Parts: sequence; structure tokens; C-alpha cells
Amino acid sequence: MEGLPQDREEALEADREDPLASYRSLFHHDEGAPIYLDGNSLGRQPRGTAGALGAVLDQWRRDLVGGWDYWMDLPTVVGDRIGQLLGAGPGQVAVSDSTTVNLYKLAAAALDARPGRGVILGDGHDFPTVRYVLQGLAARSGRRLELLGTDPVEGPRLADITPRLGEDVALVCLSAVNYRSGAVLDMEAVTEAAHRAGALALFDLSHAAGVLPVGLDRSGADLAVGCGYKYLNGGPGAPAWLYVRAEAQPQLRSPIWGWFGQEDQFAMGPAYQPAEGIRRFLAGTPDVAGIMALDAGISPLLAAGLPALWAKTRRLVGLLARRSEELLAPLGARVVSPADPTRRGGHLAISHPRAWSAAYLLVQRGLVVPDFRPPDVLRLAPVAAYTSFTEAWDALDRIASVLADPAVHQDVPRKRVT
Amino acid sequence: MEGLPQDREEALEADREDPLASYRSLFHHDEGAPIYLDGNSLGRQPRGTAGALGAVLDQWRRDLVGGWDYWMDLPTVVGDRIGQLLGAGPGQVAVSDSTTVNLYKLAAAALDARPGRGVILGDGHDFPTVRYVLQGLAARSGRRLELLGTDPVEGPRLADITPRLGEDVALVCLSAVNYRSGAVLDMEAVTEAAHRAGALALFDLSHAAGVLPVGLDRSGADLAVGCGYKYLNGGPGAPAWLYVRAEAQPQLRSPIWGWFGQEDQFAMGPAYQPAEGIRRFLAGTPDVAGIMALDAGISPLLAAGLPALWAKTRRLVGLLARRSEELLAPLGARVVSPADPTRRGGHLAISHPRAWSAAYLLVQRGLVVPDFRPPDVLRLAPVAAYTSFTEAWDALDRIASVLADPAVHQDVPRKRVT
Repeated sequence: MEGLPQDREEALEADREDPLASYRSLFHHDEGAPIYLDGNSLGRQPRGTAGALGAVLDQWRRDLVGGWDYWMDLPTVVGDRIGQLLGAGPGQVAVSDSTTVNLYKLAAAALDARPGRGVILGDGHDFPTVRYVLQGLAARSGRRLELLGTDPVEGPRLADITPRLGEDVALVCLSAVNYRSGAVLDMEAVTEAAHRAGALALFDLSHAAGVLPVGLDRSGADLAVGCGYKYLNGGPGAPAWLYVRAEAQPQLRSPIWGWFGQEDQFAMGPAYQPAEGIRRFLAGTPDVAGIMALDAGISPLLAAGLPALWAKTRRLVGLLARRSEELLAPLGARVVSPADPTRRGGHLAISHPRAWSAAYLLVQRGLVVPDFRPPDVLRLAPVAAYTSFTEAWDALDRIASVLADPAVHQDVPRKRVT
Repeated sequence: MEGLPQDREEALEADREDPLASYRSLFHHDEGAPIYLDGNSLGRQPRGTAGALGAVLDQWRRDLVGGWDYWMDLPTVVGDRIGQLLGAGPGQVAVSDSTTVNLYKLAAAALDARPGRGVILGDGHDFPTVRYVLQGLAARSGRRLELLGTDPVEGPRLADITPRLGEDVALVCLSAVNYRSGAVLDMEAVTEAAHRAGALALFDLSHAAGVLPVGLDRSGADLAVGCGYKYLNGGPGAPAWLYVRAEAQPQLRSPIWGWFGQEDQFAMGPAYQPAEGIRRFLAGTPDVAGIMALDAGISPLLAAGLPALWAKTRRLVGLLARRSEELLAPLGARVVSPADPTRRGGHLAISHPRAWSAAYLLVQRGLVVPDFRPPDVLRLAPVAAYTSFTEAWDALDRIASVLADPAVHQDVPRKRVT
């Protein structure tokens, strides 16, 4: 990859010339803290978050229940703003529930819309909650979940998917960026193939939203979900979002009939009648503070713009990839992300037999916060909005030093990793 | 009812002697604000909430993804604390999702556990989201939702329910306190009758939790849900909670198979295997800030204790009831809560043909914030932890003055009311 820093001086130079350099200060960074490469698990805290929560507290204190006059539309107002990051026009994105619950709602809605088709097509290497939700829905609806067993590094390719698409497939549900390897899916081609077979296409964008220009409307995708606490910086357990293409909305309905999805909510009438538009996919009362914090989380991304963020991300990931080959491969590590830079998302995956010990020591020694995925994968996620080229440069030196340290071969306590 | 203030001087005296008087200062009250009688829709903001959210922000800033080491158990730790308010022993309550989603999960789990039984028994006068969720589940599972058409003021009585309980009933789902009339259900008797018929019993405790000593364990109830933003003071759209009796847990599983309900979550294994215990009813990543705010919301209640809160609530509601008969009945209003004080929960309902205009004027003139439910009901909810006897006294004078004002017969703008 061209234009990558060749030494630390050039990394410093790249930071000086970085058009996004000023965005770093929109996030909290503690002095002397380890280099944070886990924004794909929990994004850093924007400086604006405290103010957003403070505003909600003021509103609640002052207006009490009257606050609902303006809180009511938050799920769709902030949904539309997330839509701007996704290439989705207004009226198609809503903030609600968790990714898991949104996936459940949309997958169930899709299955209901394709009766008589007995297969759900998923990815055996997809994020657990995606596989579990689909397993559950398959079990409940008497369908079969067919999991692609494609290469875990390269992820599903069109050529793997097309042969499995027949008239028996109701739904294709895949991730736009694989949570482990970071492999990027060709959503547009997959959607086209799914539609040719008469199936609906649903994508988990948790590792894509805020990273790459996913172009949801252009892709033709029917449905998508994504989380708010990774690249969207909404904070731990932030509410998630869902996307339903405008044309698909009238044909689909959520399996969870809640009062926030009801047409005339405050008439409190006897029979459920789903609202027009994206609101029909809401369920219970929306999490006002969570949505406002999420809005603060995406504000820096909207200001920076996806093209600039994605351009920087590609350079950062490219730098990590090149330095991993140079420094970590000789130490027994293997890059388990696609070698083709155009097929990589926002993070790089490295496998090493002592990955867990390395992750433990890196954190314990205050060097780097990577992400560990069992059994042997480190994920490194440099985030364009707040990770510098120098950090990416130094992180690799530090990881190499730990992998070269005999201590990495000693057993270390096993703790939970999120 | 004995011991009620007979004049304003005695109301002031009751406040001076109120053992809970000091709890009022644990909540924000704006100077000169109207009397707030809508804590059954959105509880006041505890002074501790800002600190709880600030702590989460500090943890997130400082520990980043490492915060999950201690955030992980929040749903059950705070669930157990809510359990203390409900008479539920540990390991049976978890904070998660919204009331709507929790109701969906538990009702679906119950239906799965009673295959071959084609009827869900509900209440035609129950809160809309309860009816809608049950309608949806009935439609999806090919069952029939049978709604009791009992008196909307008195709510379902055992004598109404027992004749409908046959071998065809899978689930009885009712509210412990009716959201309109405030009628209290005999959960224990209903559960016993449901169990005799082989059905499971699920209760919505949204208008009961934090108000009355519901004695969940003692009641024998299998399942319960409730919201966090009413009497539990968690803030607008706070996360909700769910209860599953310990003995019922192994037989039940959530329809939403999410990674937070998975046995060995971070092994990220291929097949979903529900966790032991209450965790199996979780779905996606928990809302950390929301749970911490909810914890701040229940802290004053745990400190005061349900018996003291309930004793004061009964006097407050009794005072409102007596003064409504004295002052509002001559103005054409009718108390539409049970006349028997032992059958009333934490709020009083009053119907009047101009209820909407009265609510509008009361708020617009800065006098009282009541709650309006279409077509013609004002709900008045004095909350033991922060409403004074003097406020309850004065509120009735103010409501009477507005109902007596010719302006109440003019049309006023119709706005959304939550």
C-alpha cells in the first residue's frame, strides 16, 4: 500500500498532515494510558457525551413528563442522522433496543414475509448473537438454518453464496464486515443474488457502520441492524439501530407488537395496527438518555464525513498489516484478515498461539488495549476519528516486544473479555 | 379512612410528622413548579442520578472496554435490588430491555412451555402494550387471546377469572395494578387458580413495583415484568426488569436467543445453550448507564422501605379520594378507582367530560401536572417518596378551581400525552 509511513518519523509526519487530527480532541484520552485499539468493541467517550446526558437530566428535572413532547421523535430523528453515515435516506433508520433484539425483529419479519420457504442462509463464522438469533428463529418457525462454512479469513464471497440460493431460501443474513477477520462483504452483489432467488437480505453492520461508506440505499439491502457502542461511540450498552428500506416497510411487521409501534399510540385502542413507516419496528418506550448519548457519539463522525474517515482507516489498517508482517510474523503470528486491502474493514486480526497471554500482558503493563477473541485471535482496531498514525506505529512495537518476551509463555489468569 | 387530614393545617401537620419527609429532598424539585402528580408516568429525578451517570462516564473514560469486568453483572446485581422491593429472593430478577420486550420474551417462553393449550387469558382493560404483545403472540402461535371484559373500575376479580380457566388456557397475563383505575389484583389467588388449571401466571407490575409490597415470591407467580421509569425513578425510557421464579427457570427459555443469555458467552461457541438461572432471559448487551440510573432511582425506595412507603401512599390516595368526592363530584367528576381503599394502588382516577381541557389548563397555568388518559380520565399519582400531604391537599383545590372555570369548556389544543 502506497503512502504508508516507513518509519516513526513519517508516522509523526502523517499525524501532522492528518486532516482529521483535530477530531482526536473531541474524545477523552487519559494521560499515560495504553494505546487503545479496541474501538470496535467499545468506542472511546466523546467529550460531548457528558453534556448530552446533562441536557437530558435538565430536561427531565424541569419538564418531567412533559419532556415527551420532544423526546417522542428521538428514535427517528437520531435514526436519520445515523442514516447519513450509512447512505440511507430519511425515514428508514430508527434507534431502538439492542442489536440482538433488532435482529430478531427484522429476521422474524422477513421470515413472515416469505412463508413456505424453509431455509435461512447465514454465516458459520458470524458473530455469535447473529447465529444464535437465527438458530432460535429457525427452531421456532420450523425452518433450517444453513450456515456457510466459508473461509474464516476471507468471509463469504458471492461465489459461495449463489449456489446455495434457491427457491427454498427465505432470508440471507450476513455481516457487512466480519467481526473477527474484518473481511468486507459485497452487500450489493449478495443482495442482488438474494433478490434473484426471491429471498430477503438482512445485514449486521455492527463492524461496518461509522467505518466504511456502506451505501445502504444503493446496495439494495432490505434490512440492516447495527450496534451503537462500537464505532458509533454511544457508550457501554448504547441502544442499537435498525434499517428497513422504505419500499419494504409496508410488507413487513415486527413480531413484537408494542405501543411505540402502534399507529395511533395514545388513542390506546383495542387492536394493534402497525404505524406507517419505520416507527412500526419500535417496541417499548425508547431510552432517551441512551439515544442522546448515541447522538453525541455520532456527531464527530458526521462532522468529519465518512469518506475522510474511511480514507484514514484504510491507511491505519494498512500500516498495521504491513508492520504485523514485518514484526509479528517472525514471532509466530499470522495475519488472519484478508491480504487484499480492498477487502478489509476497520480492524486487523492476528492469530498467535499465545494471543491470550499477549493480550493480558499488553493490558497489564499499560502498553496496548487490543481485543481478544478466543481461541487465539487479537483484533486491532485503529479508529480514524481518534487513533493517530504514531499510536498505530508504536502499538506494533509494543505487541512485538510482548510476543518476544518469555513471559508470554507463562500462564496468566483467564478473565472475561468483551 | 381514618387519620386523614381534615383541613390544610392538618395536612401541614401530617407533613411535619411524616417519617418519610426527609426523602423528599432526595429528589429534584424546581421552585415554583406545578404540583407533580404524574410519577406513575415518569418518576421525578433523584438527586443521585447525576452522580450515577457521572460514575459511568468516569468508568468508561478511564477503563474503556475493561469496564465490562464490573459492568457484566449489573443486570442481575441491580435486578436483585429491585427484587428486594418486590419480595423476590435473589437470582430471579434481571434488568433488561423494555417492558414490552420483556413481556414478549416471558409470554412467549410460557406459551412454549404449554404446547397444545390454545388460549391466552388477558384483560381487555389492560395497558395497551400488554394487550398488543399478547395479540401478536396469539396471532403468531395460532392461539386465541381471550380478554376479560370485567368492570374497568374494579378490574378483574377471581370470580371473573376462575370460570374462564380450563385445560385450554396456557397463560394468564394480567396487571397487578390497573394502569387506569388503579385497581389491585389478588395475584396470589389468581396464580393459585391459574396453576390449578395448569396454566402459567405472568403479571405486569409496572404500576405496582415500588408502590405496594407485591410479595412476588409469596404470591406463587411464575413470571412478572415491570418498567423502570415510573415509581422506580430510572428516567425517561429507563430499562425494564423481568422476574422468573427460580423453580420455573430451567423449564423456560427466551424466544430471543442472544449472546447475553448464552451459557458460556465468551467462548462464542457454535450452538446456543441458554445459561443457567435468570441470565438466560437476557438478550443483547445491557444498557450500563440506564441500569446505573435505575439503581439510583430505587435507592431512596430501598432506604425508606416498602412498608413505610405503602403506608404513606394509602393515606395520600385516601386523601385524594375523599377530597375528590367532596370537591370534584359536585363539578361533574366521578372517581373511577375502586371505592374500597384496600383495592386501590398508588393512584386515583377521575373521569370528567372535560378531563382533557382540565389537564391542559392545569399544566398551562402551572398548577398541577396530572396524567390524562383518553377519553376522559385524569390519573392522580401522589408518590410517597416525594409528594407531601399539603401538595395532595392543594392539588385538589386547584383541580376544582379549573373544573369550575368556564375556560374548561373551551376547546384547547390536543397534544400528545405520554
